[in-house]
Amino acid sequence: MTIDAIEAAADRLKGRARRTPLLSSPFLDEIAGRRVLVKAECLQHTGSFKFRGGWSALSALPEAARAKGVIAYSSGNHAQGVARAAQTLGVPAVILMPSDAPSSKIDNTRAMGAEVVHYDRATGDRDAIGAALAAERGLTPVMPFDDPNVIAGQGTCGLEIAEQAAEAGIGGADVLIPCGGGGLTAGTALALEARAPRLRVRPVEPEGFDDTARSLASGRIERNEKTAGSVCDAILTPSPGKLTFPTIARLCGPGLVVSENDALRAMAAAFARLKIVVEPGGAVALAAALYHPAQFEGDAVIVIASGGNVEPALFAETLGRYGDGA
Amino acid sequence: MTIDAIEAAADRLKGRARRTPLLSSPFLDEIAGRRVLVKAECLQHTGSFKFRGGWSALSALPEAARAKGVIAYSSGNHAQGVARAAQTLGVPAVILMPSDAPSSKIDNTRAMGAEVVHYDRATGDRDAIGAALAAERGLTPVMPFDDPNVIAGQGTCGLEIAEQAAEAGIGGADVLIPCGGGGLTAGTALALEARAPRLRVRPVEPEGFDDTARSLASGRIERNEKTAGSVCDAILTPSPGKLTFPTIARLCGPGLVVSENDALRAMAAAFARLKIVVEPGGAVALAAALYHPAQFEGDAVIVIASGGNVEPALFAETLGRYGDGA
Repeated sequence: MTIDAIEAAADRLKGRARRTPLLSSPFLDEIAGRRVLVKAECLQHTGSFKFRGGWSALSALPEAARAKGVIAYSSGNHAQGVARAAQTLGVPAVILMPSDAPSSKIDNTRAMGAEVVHYDRATGDRDAIGAALAAERGLTPVMPFDDPNVIAGQGTCGLEIAEQAAEAGIGGADVLIPCGGGGLTAGTALALEARAPRLRVRPVEPEGFDDTARSLASGRIERNEKTAGSVCDAILTPSPGKLTFPTIARLCGPGLVVSENDALRAMAAAFARLKIVVEPGGAVALAAALYHPAQFEGDAVIVIASGGNVEPALFAETLGRYGDGA
Repeated sequence: MTIDAIEAAADRLKGRARRTPLLSSPFLDEIAGRRVLVKAECLQHTGSFKFRGGWSALSALPEAARAKGVIAYSSGNHAQGVARAAQTLGVPAVILMPSDAPSSKIDNTRAMGAEVVHYDRATGDRDAIGAALAAERGLTPVMPFDDPNVIAGQGTCGLEIAEQAAEAGIGGADVLIPCGGGGLTAGTALALEARAPRLRVRPVEPEGFDDTARSLASGRIERNEKTAGSVCDAILTPSPGKLTFPTIARLCGPGLVVSENDALRAMAAAFARLKIVVEPGGAVALAAALYHPAQFEGDAVIVIASGGNVEPALFAETLGRYGDGA
């Protein structure tokens, strides 16, 4: 992976992905004790950065593969990013989802023109079902993070951060990124290495799902004991990716870990002070910036708010519990 | 008022106000039966477009007036816009607020460095108290809408809409704007007259507070019977302004009126589909676009989401009632 792949993805995404704003509030600066700049990827199409990777991957496919279609495994943001890109590009898309996925997510994915195929989470083998479907129909799998074109697409977020940080007068700073499989983390780190080497990426994860932080500490891929059971569902993965981890290990600073309550409180703060909707998994980097300021240095910090696809009931409950997140 | 005044305000605001994004969602397009483009002014500094007018007015003051300071009457978005602009420009600001204003608004305004002076809403004469203070200290009053520099500042939102609509491939369309005293409506209409004459502004108001719609219908300034008692508190004014109304009458199409429940439902839709926080008064234009599509024509509509300063409890309650606003 090189910066050229990210630049090529940026060309394909031009006019298609949103250049999301870098937001700030003096109230957040005061909580953190330094400037806090928030890259609002929740405002990206489909409500998360995943649209970048989805479009990047699909737009790079040869015509024959586009005509046959793609398949993705996800009940979440990756599915929506791939489905929307597929719909706009006229590529058939199959999304393999557990049959107990929330009906709103199933409906949303169908509304974007994708075919939803269900499997039983307890008894079905997702990978086998997906492989059979792919073989039968000639579908190209689109992986959520271990795919060079997906990583390059997420890296376009890093190109924008490099430009926007310069406009905001930020020289050096840590860039905190919610980290699941590491596609956004690795892609952004590659972009910043080339365009703004004084911006250093640090992955942020929820407690109990800190596979990347532990992998960075040990120098090899570590796994989580579980892959479910956190409100930060968007960023729960078994381990960093085979493609993403070497880049993360080479370029990123130590991982940060926040509690679920920190993430929810940061969600409330983003509501009150930035007027954006962030999902819990998308709020972990902001949580680290606001509530763990001793974990890093410098007079500014950049965070990515990576997604905003949160159920209304959870959002409402969180506002009741944390008010303005101060 | 001419386009030159708006261009001059845009120069003063350059690098100071945010160029807010023009957002969209196919889900909203489907509800409305046409393309819906949402200018997210809730993402502006202080959570509303009012920062534009505040900065425009204060930055246009002569040095001597800046040194003495300014005074504004407001418990809401105008106060915050003026206070933030004053703080950044180093201008002393006095904000006259009713003593029963919500403590969060008082605290926010003070946190922006303004001096808050209270008056009793029942027994005090706000204008007399303000005039006495202004005379005593040599403060310059900054009016919420009937001030040419304020109108010019709000008009910079119209300059951005003209550019962004062209980028989005929109030729002609109605531009729906939440309307209180008419500063944003008049300023935007002036900007579009010069830069995108096929975009026609239409003011939107809540039921029972439709002074501008009635004034447009009768051709003279009409008044509301009451000026309180709606959840759309940000846009309740007694009547259109003396400065704003002639421009509105000359340039705008007929006014639109929506119910409080429409506004709340649109707030939920903006949460679910755009991932932005919009206050009820700021959501009336989106409400008209989504739930009153027969009131206008064309295959696209542009709306301004003018502010996002809503209490967490009301936001939470609304999500419980309307879910995704569909």
